[in-house]
Amino acid sequence: MNNKLAIQKPTLLLSRQRAMANIEKMAQKAHHSGVRFRPHFKTHQSARVGEWFREFGVEAITVSSVEMALYFAQHGWQDITVAFPVNLLEIESINRLAEQIRLGLLVESEETVQFLTENLTAEAELWLKVDVGYGRTGIAPSDVDRFVKLASQIEAAPQLWLRGLLTHSGHTYAARSKPEIEAVYRDTVDKMQAVRAKLEAAGIPQVELSIGDTPSCSVVDDLSEVDEIRPGNFVFFDLMQLNIGACREEEIAVALACPVVAKHPEQQKLVIYGGAVHLSKEVLLAADGTPIFGYVTPLTENGWGVRFEKAYISSLSQEHGIIKADTDVIDRFSVGDLAAILPVHSCLTVNLMGQYLTLEGEHYDCM
Amino acid sequence: MNNKLAIQKPTLLLSRQRAMANIEKMAQKAHHSGVRFRPHFKTHQSARVGEWFREFGVEAITVSSVEMALYFAQHGWQDITVAFPVNLLEIESINRLAEQIRLGLLVESEETVQFLTENLTAEAELWLKVDVGYGRTGIAPSDVDRFVKLASQIEAAPQLWLRGLLTHSGHTYAARSKPEIEAVYRDTVDKMQAVRAKLEAAGIPQVELSIGDTPSCSVVDDLSEVDEIRPGNFVFFDLMQLNIGACREEEIAVALACPVVAKHPEQQKLVIYGGAVHLSKEVLLAADGTPIFGYVTPLTENGWGVRFEKAYISSLSQEHGIIKADTDVIDRFSVGDLAAILPVHSCLTVNLMGQYLTLEGEHYDCM
Repeated sequence: MNNKLAIQKPTLLLSRQRAMANIEKMAQKAHHSGVRFRPHFKTHQSARVGEWFREFGVEAITVSSVEMALYFAQHGWQDITVAFPVNLLEIESINRLAEQIRLGLLVESEETVQFLTENLTAEAELWLKVDVGYGRTGIAPSDVDRFVKLASQIEAAPQLWLRGLLTHSGHTYAARSKPEIEAVYRDTVDKMQAVRAKLEAAGIPQVELSIGDTPSCSVVDDLSEVDEIRPGNFVFFDLMQLNIGACREEEIAVALACPVVAKHPEQQKLVIYGGAVHLSKEVLLAADGTPIFGYVTPLTENGWGVRFEKAYISSLSQEHGIIKADTDVIDRFSVGDLAAILPVHSCLTVNLMGQYLTLEGEHYDCM
Repeated sequence: MNNKLAIQKPTLLLSRQRAMANIEKMAQKAHHSGVRFRPHFKTHQSARVGEWFREFGVEAITVSSVEMALYFAQHGWQDITVAFPVNLLEIESINRLAEQIRLGLLVESEETVQFLTENLTAEAELWLKVDVGYGRTGIAPSDVDRFVKLASQIEAAPQLWLRGLLTHSGHTYAARSKPEIEAVYRDTVDKMQAVRAKLEAAGIPQVELSIGDTPSCSVVDDLSEVDEIRPGNFVFFDLMQLNIGACREEEIAVALACPVVAKHPEQQKLVIYGGAVHLSKEVLLAADGTPIFGYVTPLTENGWGVRFEKAYISSLSQEHGIIKADTDVIDRFSVGDLAAILPVHSCLTVNLMGQYLTLEGEHYDCM
């Protein structure tokens, strides 16, 4: 088993080559579609990975917290949308950001717009959050009065600017094919355009439309009906995206290298040092309902190989991972070897690990 | 809503009073049972919380990684068991530890004992890992040959000392009542004693028995049939322990304070800033199969209150938490207020948060 990177404990491997290819592909699609590419940086949370995007002309980004906005602002990003409902308790940090950069904020209630009108000390652009069907948060497209009311409130506030309508079609994560994803995308665009038309009819000039989910942005060929895309996960992809049909296995750009610490061939089981504090407890259900916490690949000379068909992580404790596998897979590993695990949800694995080891041997820190 | 602690974002509140009471209770039980109390520090991962245990005479501890052992060794702990199968790749750090402290290691294979015989540069005590039924890892009690073989190997190695048999009866987590937990404990003790008797019959002198799960240690009144207990979670408890019947709600010593960022009364829903990167995706299934990611309590003058009966976290994204609740609970919260969430699995929440805010207003860091 190859260990030229001198790995001793669970280590998040990052293929720069794959990540760059993923970024390039998405940047080109945005370019051809004539939409702004405002990638979500919550997936990688790393200033150095962020630099890779600049090579493809990216200047505007999305983050999921004020903390993350402050981190990337410190690293030179000047146009940041915090795609999370404004947290009133962080107004001091929001003011600091608004004074430093072109800041986009997400609102969905009159209380929040009122609060910003009274407390925001510099200019900011507001996006109205639309719930097109995911059901997490946002305003229902049918609630035209609310959209008009918020737009008017914003218009009346000297430091607030209405930028557009923003949604996250997270229900594409329940899709399992390209047509299913395309159907959600179609419905999303229809609903967003309808809200925009209602705003126009109420005298509110043309607003932008921003969408965000990786499955739609990966699978739909022409995104020209919106103005901005904010995918994040696509930079690394993961088993969830593979399962949805939003990526191919060879596009997954991160894997967790884990030491094998015990073998139980009679139970068709390997025990690895790599648990819930490394991978997260995000789970995928196989067609028969079996919970899967990761797929298993061999480490190779230049990274990791193709996943073993008959091997998966069947359970996770705090530090233990249990690999269930066929005998021929078990036989390939000895105690002290390393296995590379493809994560179910790369965003959560990255957040837990907090750093990467690139296949070139460089250590990159997250925020 | 009370916010005298000036909380702005998801913050892990720690009740010193409750944690101290939990430690005292367990220390007293160990004392009355005449067993060594070697608490697992993977739950709190904090040198300062570790100090609280010293007040009750604790001198020996358990950890789940070499990294954690190094951290607590740096903070003055001189007798540490790493209750995780030896990771051969960390031999350098293990040697450093073995030279500094009284080190306990966990083994279950001849390869690992052989490796330690050849590579360990200072003395260590070994525990043989027994799988009494949890099915994670360890040697089956029926595999007497393997126990005898490992014991002989250890006896022949000049720097290795056989300390005892160690198990984690993690299957108590599937229990839902005191009698069910007691039945698992009874079976655990019977199996461990049987292995010990077999070892004695093979000429291997009396070895110690060490058990670890919080449900058994919390619920069984007299633990005198073993030599050592290693519970960890009991210091804080959580919803999983509450669900098992291993604690009462008023013994749960941590809660995550989360800002409310959106209200959707028509959907009986609150949105909080507090997601999978704060609470973890550990889930509890209600009797009807509903997934629950946390319970909701109000912040109070001195901490947090009793949980609302009709409110729970129904889903988590990376940063968003969705509270489903009855109207009277929804009505108690405005955007900008704080709710305190009881975590499903405190170990994972602590690991993600990495720091505490005590109810006295002190910040404690984790490793």
